[in-house]
Amino acid sequence: MKKLLAEFIGTFWLVLGGCGSAVLAAGIPELGIGFAGVAAAFGLTVLTGAYAVGHISGAHFNPAVSIGLWMGGRFNGKELPGYIIAQVLGGIAGAGILYVIASGNDGFSLADGFAANGYGEHSPMGYDMTSALVTEIVMTFMFLIVILGATHRNASPGIGGIAIGLALTLIHLISIPVTNTSVNPARSTSQALFIGDWAMGQLWLFWIAPIVGAILAGLLYKYLAPNTD
Amino acid sequence: MKKLLAEFIGTFWLVLGGCGSAVLAAGIPELGIGFAGVAAAFGLTVLTGAYAVGHISGAHFNPAVSIGLWMGGRFNGKELPGYIIAQVLGGIAGAGILYVIASGNDGFSLADGFAANGYGEHSPMGYDMTSALVTEIVMTFMFLIVILGATHRNASPGIGGIAIGLALTLIHLISIPVTNTSVNPARSTSQALFIGDWAMGQLWLFWIAPIVGAILAGLLYKYLAPNTD
Amino acid sequence: MKKLLAEFIGTFWLVLGGCGSAVLAAGIPELGIGFAGVAAAFGLTVLTGAYAVGHISGAHFNPAVSIGLWMGGRFNGKELPGYIIAQVLGGIAGAGILYVIASGNDGFSLADGFAANGYGEHSPMGYDMTSALVTEIVMTFMFLIVILGATHRNASPGIGGIAIGLALTLIHLISIPVTNTSVNPARSTSQALFIGDWAMGQLWLFWIAPIVGAILAGLLYKYLAPNTD
Amino acid sequence: MKKLLAEFIGTFWLVLGGCGSAVLAAGIPELGIGFAGVAAAFGLTVLTGAYAVGHISGAHFNPAVSIGLWMGGRFNGKELPGYIIAQVLGGIAGAGILYVIASGNDGFSLADGFAANGYGEHSPMGYDMTSALVTEIVMTFMFLIVILGATHRNASPGIGGIAIGLALTLIHLISIPVTNTSVNPARSTSQALFIGDWAMGQLWLFWIAPIVGAILAGLLYKYLAPNTD
Repeated sequence: MKKLLAEFIGTFWLVLGGCGSAVLAAGIPELGIGFAGVAAAFGLTVLTGAYAVGHISGAHFNPAVSIGLWMGGRFNGKELPGYIIAQVLGGIAGAGILYVIASGNDGFSLADGFAANGYGEHSPMGYDMTSALVTEIVMTFMFLIVILGATHRNASPGIGGIAIGLALTLIHLISIPVTNTSVNPARSTSQALFIGDWAMGQLWLFWIAPIVGAILAGLLYKYLAPNTD
Repeated sequence: MKKLLAEFIGTFWLVLGGCGSAVLAAGIPELGIGFAGVAAAFGLTVLTGAYAVGHISGAHFNPAVSIGLWMGGRFNGKELPGYIIAQVLGGIAGAGILYVIASGNDGFSLADGFAANGYGEHSPMGYDMTSALVTEIVMTFMFLIVILGATHRNASPGIGGIAIGLALTLIHLISIPVTNTSVNPARSTSQALFIGDWAMGQLWLFWIAPIVGAILAGLLYKYLAPNTD
Repeated sequence: MKKLLAEFIGTFWLVLGGCGSAVLAAGIPELGIGFAGVAAAFGLTVLTGAYAVGHISGAHFNPAVSIGLWMGGRFNGKELPGYIIAQVLGGIAGAGILYVIASGNDGFSLADGFAANGYGEHSPMGYDMTSALVTEIVMTFMFLIVILGATHRNASPGIGGIAIGLALTLIHLISIPVTNTSVNPARSTSQALFIGDWAMGQLWLFWIAPIVGAILAGLLYKYLAPNTD
Repeated sequence: MKKLLAEFIGTFWLVLGGCGSAVLAAGIPELGIGFAGVAAAFGLTVLTGAYAVGHISGAHFNPAVSIGLWMGGRFNGKELPGYIIAQVLGGIAGAGILYVIASGNDGFSLADGFAANGYGEHSPMGYDMTSALVTEIVMTFMFLIVILGATHRNASPGIGGIAIGLALTLIHLISIPVTNTSVNPARSTSQALFIGDWAMGQLWLFWIAPIVGAILAGLLYKYLAPNTD
């Protein structure tokens, strides 16, 4: 139960911090943090969340991560449903608090898209569905490769959270223009529920693609460097 | 006494560095560091201060942090008054030096707001009091969750200062537009004393909200992961 | 074989992440990540790649690095040809995936230069061939000095990947305007193959100069601090 | 002799990387790295230099640092003259290479100030001499407090280089607008020699103020936390 609460809090933080920085601070003229600031924020939610509750739940905060770790032989499949439910609920709670904060500004409107993920006409810079699919699969694949490596028993303990958080920053530096970057179905779901409409219609891609990428990474890394004694 | 001097120096650095970067460097056309640079600066004051004097005083630099650690069972309540006084005085000293430096430029005026925190018409982007309250409570809550986790006896020693400093950077990336980000009553007080007027009138929120958030985090984390043997 | 696969994946990530951030995200008006974001991305590909597969292959991801480590007595020359081939192929694969993603946007054209390296009229800010030669030699020299130092047996284990990744970020902060920054023949080759023409014609410099810088660093560091018992 | 070579290389890197990023990359329209990027670069020269040669010379790269460490009882005064000479020569070599690279661009002119430090009309944003003096004293004071703390025997070994490098980044985020940030007489000298004229005339401040700040920090820290057994 404490593990699930830890996953809830961590995913709450990921959505509130990552999507929050995008909605509240990215586009302010002159002083705004831009895509680079949003990329930093997403990575730091995971970096800080990992040191906050990593020793409790392992700090997944992402259904694709839990599935990839399971495929890589690092996570017990029995815990999977509970983790995923806690992550999705935590993400929704983060989106809810963000909605409350953002609504205290007269200029806010959900019609601006919140921080939802999308492709085609809903891609930030107009990338098509194929680009979105390839991007989300490959980015999640590499995210899991970093996670599986940085938490491997041959890796330096203690530094993993830094490498994993900064991997998420890197992924956003590359791919915000394409899909607004998901690699995390819980993050995508939390925003789509508030937008409804087109965001719910495109949500399938942000479950399928990250999970496919994560499964491939889990299988490959198990071959590359088994974690057994 | 050495502990109190360490807290004084650390909070001096937090205000001089964080508020200083905002006042001196944020808004310069083309080359200015923007909100993202200010966010980096605030976080780095804590990160560097932690490695500078953390082994002396624990590096709180913030009354809300001291209170949250006390509620979480990590800090002796008897030391609380001394710590808070040292923090507030250190913050004021930092603001004083910043005022001296800034005054050496013809374009400087306290009427531009120094780096005071505010809501409503004094929020950087016009967020109302409810947004400010929610933001400061939730951000301080998460700040303490990271601090309590990163300094937990199950956490990796030595890395804590990095995670905690970067948590403050993350908090600023999200919330500068809302309240100019406090999560620290000493920092808010140091600026309000120079502005007087509206900043003193709104100062209550930047004591109440961070302390409420810190208390909630202390109680929750004690349940989540007791630090006892 | 696992080592070569690790080098392939790491160099794939270096090109996809570093060149990808440049092609997809650098120049977007207002929100784009600029040269600083690209510098961060290149560094983070190596930082994250080091924690992902460093314990498998040593995480070179760069023919000049492999050669410099060999000259410094840290890498077996017999493994050199395999490593270089894996790095070049991994880079090309990264460029290929980037091409697929970028092509999903109507505004994309290879005529904009992809993320190729160049000098003279193909230098981002018009630096001549001498500047390019000096820059690439000196930057690669210092990159190897950092690598040889951070992985020295007297250095702190575990932190090396952070220092090395951030060294690459620093190198890009300095030299993107001069040559678009190579210091890595595999990275340069991967882009030149897609551009052909002038990029292939200038590719010689981005093999010669990094390798010269790396050899000089290997020889100097072996004198400065032998790694033997 | 190897120590002096290490100090030469490190200060060479500090000037080439820090001043180089300012001269080559800061002011490019749209894509330039701005003051924040220059701040990152200066910090990363020290961070990477510390992991490159810290185990050889201690990685001072700065006469004020050597003097502050000596006052704090951490460095043998007999080594001081050699260190300072190596640092100044290394800085000049870095400025020389930067001059060669920059000269390969038609738009370059020393009349733009290279990356010299200054006050009054030569302050980047027009701060007067008093602001410059206070800034350089306080910033160097805090730089040494961080260095003395992060390398204290009670501090976590191995992380020091990160905290110290990021302290220099923080100092630049605050004070580039005031003096272009020195806190390092070797860095200031290296630029002033190329500019001559006003930069040589103002150079005294960038020797005196950093050294005063460093001495105060050394004395205070020795009182605050002696390093003896």
